[in-house]
Amino acid sequence: MHFAKLHGLGNDFILIENLDSDIEDLSEIAIKGCDRHFGVGADGLLVVEKSKIADIKMTIINSDGSVAEMCGNGIRCFAKYIYEKGIVKKDSISVETLAGIMKIKLKVEGGIVSGVKANMGSPSFEKALIPFKGEVDNRSYFIEVNGKNYSASTLLMGVPHTILYVDDVDDDEIIRVGREIENMSIFPSKTNVNFVKIIDRNNIKLKTWERGAGLTLACGTGTCASVVASYINGLTENKVRAKLQGGYMYIDYDGENVFMEGPAEFICEGELLL
Amino acid sequence: MHFAKLHGLGNDFILIENLDSDIEDLSEIAIKGCDRHFGVGADGLLVVEKSKIADIKMTIINSDGSVAEMCGNGIRCFAKYIYEKGIVKKDSISVETLAGIMKIKLKVEGGIVSGVKANMGSPSFEKALIPFKGEVDNRSYFIEVNGKNYSASTLLMGVPHTILYVDDVDDDEIIRVGREIENMSIFPSKTNVNFVKIIDRNNIKLKTWERGAGLTLACGTGTCASVVASYINGLTENKVRAKLQGGYMYIDYDGENVFMEGPAEFICEGELLL
Repeated sequence: MHFAKLHGLGNDFILIENLDSDIEDLSEIAIKGCDRHFGVGADGLLVVEKSKIADIKMTIINSDGSVAEMCGNGIRCFAKYIYEKGIVKKDSISVETLAGIMKIKLKVEGGIVSGVKANMGSPSFEKALIPFKGEVDNRSYFIEVNGKNYSASTLLMGVPHTILYVDDVDDDEIIRVGREIENMSIFPSKTNVNFVKIIDRNNIKLKTWERGAGLTLACGTGTCASVVASYINGLTENKVRAKLQGGYMYIDYDGENVFMEGPAEFICEGELLL
Repeated sequence: MHFAKLHGLGNDFILIENLDSDIEDLSEIAIKGCDRHFGVGADGLLVVEKSKIADIKMTIINSDGSVAEMCGNGIRCFAKYIYEKGIVKKDSISVETLAGIMKIKLKVEGGIVSGVKANMGSPSFEKALIPFKGEVDNRSYFIEVNGKNYSASTLLMGVPHTILYVDDVDDDEIIRVGREIENMSIFPSKTNVNFVKIIDRNNIKLKTWERGAGLTLACGTGTCASVVASYINGLTENKVRAKLQGGYMYIDYDGENVFMEGPAEFICEGELLL
């Protein structure tokens, strides 16, 4: 089976084509292929599929075999692949995902995609949509884990995201606290957890604990959600540069849609022999 | 650049060919290629090179860019690759390594290598060769780390190996203790550290902390060294099945040479685009 591995700021993906819909065991391919020692190794699997309502369809499977609605870094890698392979040869592409149709703009130089800007859609704070079962204002509330109180926000940005505003972004804390919050009963569909440090009104630093994937180097929807939440709580402006472990992401929230710009890179390409 | 990824019991490698000796930046390729998010991801890089004294030469670069003398799981992956690609089409192969010439026997079924048995050479307890600077008998001594005393052996099995006999193989302890011992001044070339649990006289369980690579799923030379040390200390027989996280390795020590048999598997193959 042909595959490629790409990454967006270190959030890495195996990508396969399923344009004839003849591959059925996507979950098994994701589990085997994403294993970092017995497989290629990746945070998730991106599958290129035909769409009846957009230019193309992206299916995302997490490394544990579960389905993901949407992934911001993934869609940049996906867009780079489908353009450079000639599957959709337009610099403005619509992509069907489980979180709706995403609009993508490509920066193309000499046939190579050097940057990808995505309209990540609208955030929602509506509790039923997230879903969020807490009896507090989810724009700004306190959440307690292991006796420590975190200032938090919860919203839907394609997938459910909870933002914790912290003084320092610490890996040990993320692993400990992220897992606890992910599985709390106030989040019936679980939640991603973003640990955000406000640097100034145009700069934040963050790391994300992803549902089903754990601590990852960069989460696109999490970065968008973090900027929206920081902005509506008056902590930042609406245009923010977000520092992630692997580099920078540029987020622009116009009050309705969130635009995310960032890089995507090929790592390797060939035959999967699992 | 063409590459393959293979694994031997979860100890995974990127393999490239350098038969014309025209690739110079092997260390950089290893560092970039072995990164598990920004690269393909592997424990190390295996390089196929021409030899004047054996059928073929294997150069091994660790994920941190340093050179390794020899790797037991690596040589099985290496042997599978060179046979199946027709580079050396013999079922008995000699491989030049920095630890000497290794003799390999392949189990071939329908052109496919189903098992690899390697003569891993002779172990040595000679202090100057290991090198070991301790003023104790390195066949059996005590080593103290963070106030805890471990019963230990140190020998050369291609590379320096220290064996700690433990009641339970615990990842947290390996990470904590392995790093400490690796860098002790009694080991001028550092040391790999094997945490070995004796199950019965023909079975052990182990995990290895590797110099320059950290905790890995399976270390071939470490498994050989562990059986030799267990045998000469009267803890096991000379034929032992070793349980590693990813499966089993079969070790046979005839008093002079150590023979290791185990699996090797292709994961993927294609073009490295870093």
